[in-house]
Amino acid sequence: MLNFSLGPVMMEQEIREIGSEQIPYFRTDEFSKLMLENEELLKKCIGATGTSRVIFLTGSGTAAMEATIMNLFHERDKLLIVNGGSFGARFKEICNIHGLHSEEIHLEYGEDLTERHLEKYDGQGFTGFLINVHETSTGVLYDMDIVKSFCERNQLLVVVDAISSFLADRYDMSEFNINATILSSQKAMALPPGISFVVLDEKSQERVLHNSVKSLYFNFKSYLNDGRRGQTPYTPAVSILLQLRKKLQLVDENGVSEVIANVSSIARDFRMKIKGLPLEIAASSLSNAVTPLKPTGKMAADEIFTYLKDNHDIYVCPNGGSLRRVLFRVGHIGAITESDNNELIKALLSMKEKSIL
Amino acid sequence: MLNFSLGPVMMEQEIREIGSEQIPYFRTDEFSKLMLENEELLKKCIGATGTSRVIFLTGSGTAAMEATIMNLFHERDKLLIVNGGSFGARFKEICNIHGLHSEEIHLEYGEDLTERHLEKYDGQGFTGFLINVHETSTGVLYDMDIVKSFCERNQLLVVVDAISSFLADRYDMSEFNINATILSSQKAMALPPGISFVVLDEKSQERVLHNSVKSLYFNFKSYLNDGRRGQTPYTPAVSILLQLRKKLQLVDENGVSEVIANVSSIARDFRMKIKGLPLEIAASSLSNAVTPLKPTGKMAADEIFTYLKDNHDIYVCPNGGSLRRVLFRVGHIGAITESDNNELIKALLSMKEKSIL
Repeated sequence: MLNFSLGPVMMEQEIREIGSEQIPYFRTDEFSKLMLENEELLKKCIGATGTSRVIFLTGSGTAAMEATIMNLFHERDKLLIVNGGSFGARFKEICNIHGLHSEEIHLEYGEDLTERHLEKYDGQGFTGFLINVHETSTGVLYDMDIVKSFCERNQLLVVVDAISSFLADRYDMSEFNINATILSSQKAMALPPGISFVVLDEKSQERVLHNSVKSLYFNFKSYLNDGRRGQTPYTPAVSILLQLRKKLQLVDENGVSEVIANVSSIARDFRMKIKGLPLEIAASSLSNAVTPLKPTGKMAADEIFTYLKDNHDIYVCPNGGSLRRVLFRVGHIGAITESDNNELIKALLSMKEKSIL
Repeated sequence: MLNFSLGPVMMEQEIREIGSEQIPYFRTDEFSKLMLENEELLKKCIGATGTSRVIFLTGSGTAAMEATIMNLFHERDKLLIVNGGSFGARFKEICNIHGLHSEEIHLEYGEDLTERHLEKYDGQGFTGFLINVHETSTGVLYDMDIVKSFCERNQLLVVVDAISSFLADRYDMSEFNINATILSSQKAMALPPGISFVVLDEKSQERVLHNSVKSLYFNFKSYLNDGRRGQTPYTPAVSILLQLRKKLQLVDENGVSEVIANVSSIARDFRMKIKGLPLEIAASSLSNAVTPLKPTGKMAADEIFTYLKDNHDIYVCPNGGSLRRVLFRVGHIGAITESDNNELIKALLSMKEKSIL
């Protein structure tokens, strides 16, 4: 099996081995120590300020998106959302459900976010900004420098979903002046799915402490409180947290930029090798994490996904909704190598030779 | 390491091995098939009606408790809660947060629920009943026959947290006339923590469909909808769901009553062997899942936990809050054997010989 999807992705051998170990009881000093180490390493890898904190939330990325919005904003806020695909749309849906005043910048699939999109919202009384730095559904990576400049001059609280970008693209909370970042275990961290992380700077923590949240499970106050001694209020996905420490230690040893350079080189290798295939790269501002592809030959996107799965035991990442037939994605995150790329290219070439692609 | 805690617990070899496998992409017919099989097997093991459905919620048991209450009840309901420890108290806390009218039957630690506790609430206009069939924090197993009789004559919607009782004690939704049951992966199912399950009968499903829930992640409507084709609305803890199928297949092959008989026999064996130790069993109505113990000798409960961990690499289950010094628990769920019991007894005896216990 070769998995080029966008999560769960292929895991390294050292991480996999931890998955088969017995899981220790976790209300112990030993586990607390491990959690505090996880927090420090995660903050270091993401360029968070020293006073930042990490929420370890057992749940999907969507749980973390919803909980973050519930904890950081209230009815008096006015939020601006970049909606360039299904994950941007999810931010909007969450705001609507929770009665938060929000407007969205709607981008077509594959479209970049530009200064022009943003400038008309200058001085309009917005208080918060929500963006998926990499809109995973279309593969577009947004320019965080223009986001930073817009948010600074309008003094917005900036919440970034970096779920599919962290460890794949350069991302630094301090440099980009981000107040909260949402992460999930199963993307470039290459851990099993089941737990998400929210890194909060001091300003975000202040918001949490002064906000009233109508939820027990999603109330970050208890996570901040118990987290101080390396614990979570409810039983967390302990085994993934053990794997997280190993992963972060490996990233720390190699250096974050080295880890990102590796993903980037796998992506470049793949993008070079598809030349000559009836596949068009469907965005100009690309994340290293994924290549969005528009088939230009005989086979529709969803059929390519199924054919590769059934005939080659290779998983690429299909799209849903209106993009189902026109777009599929090839991921470059997780334990993927150039030789794995070659396998996928070989499969695609054989489909071309058979005149079915 | 020997783990007698109440979750995560020791896992079987076959389950552990799945934890080290690469995780497949899950938006596929193959994974849908596995999920539908999980749903059917779970329903079978828990005695659910044929039209019942299962919600697979990535999150801790508390997430499932809160989501269930949010989806099944509304402001016009009046709920009765059995509060005999921290998990009963959690039900109450959730109701308060969500503005639901609720009253609680407060039990002292170790106290049984009796007909007398219930009868004064007859005909008081209650619409729902919330109970933890096994109050995990104190080890008390409630009598579901009196609950059934009370709830039937008052026509209450019955929600049961069976997180620490399912597969340890006899539990049958049809027989007990339960409308919704909350389960979690890390107790007697002996899987890693990270996912919870809510089994809903037809009446509960009706409630879900007609209720308005102010949450995206906790809205069961989307889970019921996507679940029809074996999918979840958000990326689930895929690896645990693969392990779940294996576990349920094993349970189905052996028979649920055989699985429970085994837990019961491990519990009986342990309870017999502690005679002569300065430990008193601190409840009369016991779950097979756990033995709550009150130390009557020199060492406080929390010190016994720490001593066993540091000197014997054995984990028992400590209590928190006001019970920290007076109570600890020994679990009998997961891949525990009589010979593991012997190891724990040997350690306790050596502490007694050293005159420290």
